[in-house]
Amino acid sequence: MAERKTRTILGIDPGTNVMGYGIIRTSGKNPELIALDVLKLKKSEHHFERLSRIFECTLSLIEKYHPDELAIEAPFYGKNVQSMLKLGRAQGAAIAAALHKNIPVYEYAPRKIKMAITGIGSASKEQVASILQQMMHIDAMPVKLDATDGLAVAICHCFQKIPVTKSSGYSGWKDFIKNNPSRLK
Amino acid sequence: MAERKTRTILGIDPGTNVMGYGIIRTSGKNPELIALDVLKLKKSEHHFERLSRIFECTLSLIEKYHPDELAIEAPFYGKNVQSMLKLGRAQGAAIAAALHKNIPVYEYAPRKIKMAITGIGSASKEQVASILQQMMHIDAMPVKLDATDGLAVAICHCFQKIPVTKSSGYSGWKDFIKNNPSRLK
Repeated sequence: MAERKTRTILGIDPGTNVMGYGIIRTSGKNPELIALDVLKLKKSEHHFERLSRIFECTLSLIEKYHPDELAIEAPFYGKNVQSMLKLGRAQGAAIAAALHKNIPVYEYAPRKIKMAITGIGSASKEQVASILQQMMHIDAMPVKLDATDGLAVAICHCFQKIPVTKSSGYSGWKDFIKNNPSRLK
Repeated sequence: MAERKTRTILGIDPGTNVMGYGIIRTSGKNPELIALDVLKLKKSEHHFERLSRIFECTLSLIEKYHPDELAIEAPFYGKNVQSMLKLGRAQGAAIAAALHKNIPVYEYAPRKIKMAITGIGSASKEQVASILQQMMHIDAMPVKLDATDGLAVAICHCFQKIPVTKSSGYSGWKDFIKNNPSRLK
């Protein structure tokens, strides 16, 4: 088997109240934990203020840790259209930040992430966090489980067949221009 | 009445298939048309590719025309949660681009925009376009009415009481930091 180069993966669970994130580095089967935290978004904040903070936080994580890929948890269903619109905006802000920096983005449904970590698609947040704690040798777990949700999607992405094919991710407009010069006016 | 300074307003109707936009400049009651066009997003494009193009197009419009404000058409309802998530992502990408450049963002529901232009909240796209054509002295109307939808939200915003109060718009994270130094850790 060919030697794999080191990859840094940023995993994000972008919500409208809290954005959880985890960063891992891997050169083989055992990923190493680099960062695990949350960006807290307050109810008192204007909705646009939250979007701005999600965008700028994602951008600063990219500038600080230089991830090779972004993996996001993306629920495809929700309580109602209103909440899905807001959730979509939060996801859109995080995705736009990564694509602007030419970081390929991959999205995973919550069930797929839980399955990848615990083997059970309906596992609870606590079960996912507990397995991640053992797997990554985390001494002090974060209070907010949103952080481990971010880590979980990074690990889930890390477990996929590598290199990930072009079709399952998208790496930005500049890459598109480079690969499709004939499609430009 | 105090003399108003010239304002440039970028109006955007961000959709998942077409993004319409209009740019106006106003120093009083009669806004002048600066640009009117659409960004076409193809069905063959990956969803992330579309988000990237929406973000980069908004960014380039800001860099080219230096708008003082962004007004977006934001429907708050839709057919289903799936379509609202995608629409939310498209809106999130356009909003994030403006906030990143410290452009205040204002959103208007379609009914409010139609009411502002035609006086009828349930007016058709064609009725809105027809009135805009007369109002702005547009000789050749764009084929895609999404462009006039973008122009309509810019005009609607222009018609609001000016200066618009802080509560109805949000001007970016950097402004928030400047105005709320005590809320930073």
